[in-house]
Amino acid sequence: MKPSGIITLTSDFGLTDPYVGIMKGVILSIHASAKLIDLTHCVKAGSVVQASALIQEVFPHFPKGTIHVGVVDPGVGSERRPILVETTDHFFVGPDNGLFWPIINAGRNTKIIHLSEGKFFLNELSHTFHGRDIFAPVAAHLCRGEDSRMMGPVVSDPVRLDLPKPREKGGFLWGQVLRVDHFGNLITNIQGKEMDRYLESAQPIIEVGNLVVVGVHETYSEAQAGEALALIGSSDCLEIAVNLGRACERVGSGSGDVVGVSVAVKKRKG
Amino acid sequence: MKPSGIITLTSDFGLTDPYVGIMKGVILSIHASAKLIDLTHCVKAGSVVQASALIQEVFPHFPKGTIHVGVVDPGVGSERRPILVETTDHFFVGPDNGLFWPIINAGRNTKIIHLSEGKFFLNELSHTFHGRDIFAPVAAHLCRGEDSRMMGPVVSDPVRLDLPKPREKGGFLWGQVLRVDHFGNLITNIQGKEMDRYLESAQPIIEVGNLVVVGVHETYSEAQAGEALALIGSSDCLEIAVNLGRACERVGSGSGDVVGVSVAVKKRKG
Amino acid sequence: MKPSGIITLTSDFGLTDPYVGIMKGVILSIHASAKLIDLTHCVKAGSVVQASALIQEVFPHFPKGTIHVGVVDPGVGSERRPILVETTDHFFVGPDNGLFWPIINAGRNTKIIHLSEGKFFLNELSHTFHGRDIFAPVAAHLCRGEDSRMMGPVVSDPVRLDLPKPREKGGFLWGQVLRVDHFGNLITNIQGKEMDRYLESAQPIIEVGNLVVVGVHETYSEAQAGEALALIGSSDCLEIAVNLGRACERVGSGSGDVVGVSVAVKKRKG
Repeated sequence: MKPSGIITLTSDFGLTDPYVGIMKGVILSIHASAKLIDLTHCVKAGSVVQASALIQEVFPHFPKGTIHVGVVDPGVGSERRPILVETTDHFFVGPDNGLFWPIINAGRNTKIIHLSEGKFFLNELSHTFHGRDIFAPVAAHLCRGEDSRMMGPVVSDPVRLDLPKPREKGGFLWGQVLRVDHFGNLITNIQGKEMDRYLESAQPIIEVGNLVVVGVHETYSEAQAGEALALIGSSDCLEIAVNLGRACERVGSGSGDVVGVSVAVKKRKG
Repeated sequence: MKPSGIITLTSDFGLTDPYVGIMKGVILSIHASAKLIDLTHCVKAGSVVQASALIQEVFPHFPKGTIHVGVVDPGVGSERRPILVETTDHFFVGPDNGLFWPIINAGRNTKIIHLSEGKFFLNELSHTFHGRDIFAPVAAHLCRGEDSRMMGPVVSDPVRLDLPKPREKGGFLWGQVLRVDHFGNLITNIQGKEMDRYLESAQPIIEVGNLVVVGVHETYSEAQAGEALALIGSSDCLEIAVNLGRACERVGSGSGDVVGVSVAVKKRKG
Repeated sequence: MKPSGIITLTSDFGLTDPYVGIMKGVILSIHASAKLIDLTHCVKAGSVVQASALIQEVFPHFPKGTIHVGVVDPGVGSERRPILVETTDHFFVGPDNGLFWPIINAGRNTKIIHLSEGKFFLNELSHTFHGRDIFAPVAAHLCRGEDSRMMGPVVSDPVRLDLPKPREKGGFLWGQVLRVDHFGNLITNIQGKEMDRYLESAQPIIEVGNLVVVGVHETYSEAQAGEALALIGSSDCLEIAVNLGRACERVGSGSGDVVGVSVAVKKRKG
């Protein structure tokens, strides 16, 4: 696959430390014309699940041949392997800790390479910052056209990531809140097509903590200002929102953190 | 107008969600050489006023032919129209909700197009994310040179935005705090030229909440460390600051949010 | 030195105000093909020390000929000079307030120019925003190949920055916490080579507030989850961390702000 010239960056480095700037410098020193795009550097520290979901949602919108670097790497310096995942359309560079498992799991013809060829790394490897020493330089070398087959052996046993899946029980479809977005909307792990059976006859009832909404709408503004509603959001998942408000503050969990809170969908009685 | 190749992005999407990355991917998939510049993604959720003021202040510094995408869009999916505003020097793409009203209002020869030609959109339109489905692809098509006249009909009734204006009353010039900047400085809606009459003879007295300052200075460091002062700031508006401190914490409003608090300017007696 | 085409930006402007976008617009209006890289805009307001350390750590990773703009400038509009620092490999543009002192101090053949030639500035100079009026345009002109010798006279008396240095006393090596990174790790001013004497025979004891750790490890994951450890971090400084946790919350300073807290290293008794 021909590289697109674009490298995306995702990490839990935050916006204050030197780490992101260092990675960019390393990339541009190897391949000055790389086009660098930040996806986010505000992943919760060490949250492989959050970073994994974000990369999986964003990458298909990028051109074929784009290189996606992900550095959420609490096991840096341990035995965990640095890997390159190459699908038919995209490259992914980062630690073998489950970060790219959803992409590996979804793909056909996906190749996983254990990055072990030191000539694509910085000269000295640290034990604490492989984003700088391995992932940034490998991405830069890929971007300038180096052959991924020279970067290490193919492996077939990547680390998996267990993500919670919705299930049906007791007449309910049970899911979870996967994340709360910037607007306070609750994004769940229930996909649009899983809702189909509940949308057939009558309006489903959706419960998450103290919030109960009836029916699935299309647009935030179909609800009154301050009123809660459910809809199938832009990433084709069931989403609970409050028009012009913050749904996360209505759920009633003490901590305000509603990630992982159960969502129950049931058919309305006739 | 020939596009400059630059697309600026302004939104209330924050820095944690996939939304900004998705818009960038969509743009680059249509026009890989677009140069993307983030103005900010930290507009307060739904604050059309804040985003509007920011875009209006920043855009004139960009090269002729730059495309400015603004996505602060609480009415997404409703009847509100997606529009393109084309002045003699710049393009603006976003919702018709007042976001670009200051630019429309200031301009001569400004053309407003209702974006309705689906071939410049993504194939499937959602009801919740027109930044991805309409605004990003339209900006990318403009950037690669597509003719804006093919994108929809000209309209003449854009949504207006009522912004507070200073007025004179009882010997005072009354204005408002428009925003508090990152340094805690109070940026008001009183422009430099409106202050001229108050600067003629004696030093004006400026009151905002508990803060009273006398005279208008040129530089923060003309005040002692920790001392409040007024000056005509870099955007040619009256600004109240504390040298090496935060003026917003001196105003004395309980909430700490001083946007909208009145500012009174009067001539000093004698 | 031939410019690389890359301009890095570091400031304390935050992410909400128009200031960063304005600087980018000014640069691109002068030199549209400049490649802009944000290092950070989240330096603590007015913290020359923090910005200085960040630029010093990041810049060597960038290609030769890169231009680094730093705008942490509490003395803007006063007598402080705008300067250009030119080493054999990089350019630095910003205020003469100590920001670039570590670079000047470390360098050989470093030239310092007092930026005074108005034709490289914007037409009208404000007293409050030299990032826009002087530093951005000078960087853009440098990037397009203008000769730095035309920009003003060479000066030899730059403002110095006193940074705390570790010292030995009473059998201890005393240092300080320089910064707390996004992961809560304590980055100290004790460099790897200064630790060498303490690593010779037995494992050193490292104390910072309530935290006491024994020995210096290589990797975070050598400690148990939640356990504190010391290591020589990616920037070759002594670092105190908690594996999968936040060391800054263990130090026991009331405020939670541990910058400047003493770090003591001693040899273990026999």
